[in-house]
Amino acid sequence: MSVTVVGSLAYDAVKTPFGSRDRMLGGAATHFALAASFFDEVRVVGPVGDDFDDASMEVLRTRGTVTDDVERVAGGKTFFWSGVYADNLNSRETLATDLNVFEHFEPKLSDASRSSEVLFLANIQPELQLAVREECAAARFVAMDSMNLWIDIAREALERTIRTVDCLILNDEELEQLTGRATTVAAAQELLGWGLKAVVAKQGKYGATLFTEEDVFALPAYPLEHVVDPTGAGDTFAGGFVGYVAAQGADASHEVLARAMAYGTALASYNVEEFGTERVTRLTADEIAGRVSDLHRMTAFTEAPVALRG
Amino acid sequence: MSVTVVGSLAYDAVKTPFGSRDRMLGGAATHFALAASFFDEVRVVGPVGDDFDDASMEVLRTRGTVTDDVERVAGGKTFFWSGVYADNLNSRETLATDLNVFEHFEPKLSDASRSSEVLFLANIQPELQLAVREECAAARFVAMDSMNLWIDIAREALERTIRTVDCLILNDEELEQLTGRATTVAAAQELLGWGLKAVVAKQGKYGATLFTEEDVFALPAYPLEHVVDPTGAGDTFAGGFVGYVAAQGADASHEVLARAMAYGTALASYNVEEFGTERVTRLTADEIAGRVSDLHRMTAFTEAPVALRG
Repeated sequence: MSVTVVGSLAYDAVKTPFGSRDRMLGGAATHFALAASFFDEVRVVGPVGDDFDDASMEVLRTRGTVTDDVERVAGGKTFFWSGVYADNLNSRETLATDLNVFEHFEPKLSDASRSSEVLFLANIQPELQLAVREECAAARFVAMDSMNLWIDIAREALERTIRTVDCLILNDEELEQLTGRATTVAAAQELLGWGLKAVVAKQGKYGATLFTEEDVFALPAYPLEHVVDPTGAGDTFAGGFVGYVAAQGADASHEVLARAMAYGTALASYNVEEFGTERVTRLTADEIAGRVSDLHRMTAFTEAPVALRG
Repeated sequence: MSVTVVGSLAYDAVKTPFGSRDRMLGGAATHFALAASFFDEVRVVGPVGDDFDDASMEVLRTRGTVTDDVERVAGGKTFFWSGVYADNLNSRETLATDLNVFEHFEPKLSDASRSSEVLFLANIQPELQLAVREECAAARFVAMDSMNLWIDIAREALERTIRTVDCLILNDEELEQLTGRATTVAAAQELLGWGLKAVVAKQGKYGATLFTEEDVFALPAYPLEHVVDPTGAGDTFAGGFVGYVAAQGADASHEVLARAMAYGTALASYNVEEFGTERVTRLTADEIAGRVSDLHRMTAFTEAPVALRG
């Protein structure tokens, strides 16, 4: 099996209370691939410009990620994002979004990318997500991300796209905005009614919650003493989550998805420890397994009956 | 054993996206007592005015809570708080805080209240908390709450008070403000260094995290489809948490405290389903046990080894 991801490859400029980077490798597909490649072969579909350097391509190829469908646009510049994080790191201000080669991007999938059994549609224009989803008819598990921008300006296309996938991974407030419901639970229940098998609500530094027809599974973020840069945490989470599902044969039972949440959470926790891709690039399998075990221990409690007063 | 709580008894006016109440029974000690009384006998210490009516006193006495030390100040008015919640219910604006009889409150404890083995110092002026803590020399488990106001205007007294208790229960952002640390984990570690046995970070609608010298335990909030009024959720959580510890004999091992978190979380989830004390007043022991079981199921995942690619 292999996992295809369609999304952005980017250079980011970020400032956090703990430092800054003027130009670091980023983009949703990059962060996703670095995480998902721990589980399965990843194929990246996305555009870069002439300025996308060999070192960046090498990072993208970590653990054998296939970059045949990374389209180099002659004369173009790579997507650029710049932002500043608030002191508590849970909100950020975007300073610049230069679409560059992304502006006229039309995903072109090779036969191999088209044949993947697992597909992740990172946050791009919903129409493009839908086109890719329809091209990948063989995919047995399709997950997607999106953002408030598309809810605001392309709600109809977004809804049409969501109705074709198995799993929506979105920030909790965006789930509420998308459905007009006041709680994440109500929003997720409505979205399951659209035909989704699973909805994952990302809650920033607080964790994530999984909703399926079967049950709810809530997992706090891994408690970190030091956080340096949250950029890419959501896509790293998605990479661990979707990658784990792919490694299990794309049969997304509630139990498998719950375990996938733990891998996504562990990977995301490493991602935020340093800037951009710095930490995950040198991450080891043992470190991931260790943090999943820690998460298991730190979230487990034993039930012991207590006599309650009536 | 019994549990003594010192704190406010109040009338609240609140407006949330789901309705409003002009004058409902509230106050930290009220919410705490309603929850803790499921586990043990509770003794409430706090002032009320002439306007505190019999119906309110009856609610306070639910499950045998002892109100001998509720001081009725002749000619005085009960503490009054008024606030409006934002659409996502996770932030609120205070419209009025009329201290009334609270302005000159000096806690007066009966011998019985003074002899409790478990003590909760709800959010009041730190000097008063300290005086009560020193009076209750026999207490084997003392927990306290506070708020950003006291960090701003009475930091030294607050720190002195914290150094005399076993457990601090505070919002995550207040823990960070108190210690000047950037993450909740770093803040909690510093506070454990002050001699606390446990620090509980409340994270609003996202849950709570427990820090002890032994380990960390993180628990998401119970996922609710409908939330009506968050007022008193934190004190209800504290009541369930501290009450459970009291029922276990005040031996606050990490494992006991983790289970206490589940009871606090279950109780708080009921509290927010209706306005003020409305839901918890008619809550049953079976409902609490059921939600603790649900929380256990919704947060559990099984570890299953997966071959990670190197």
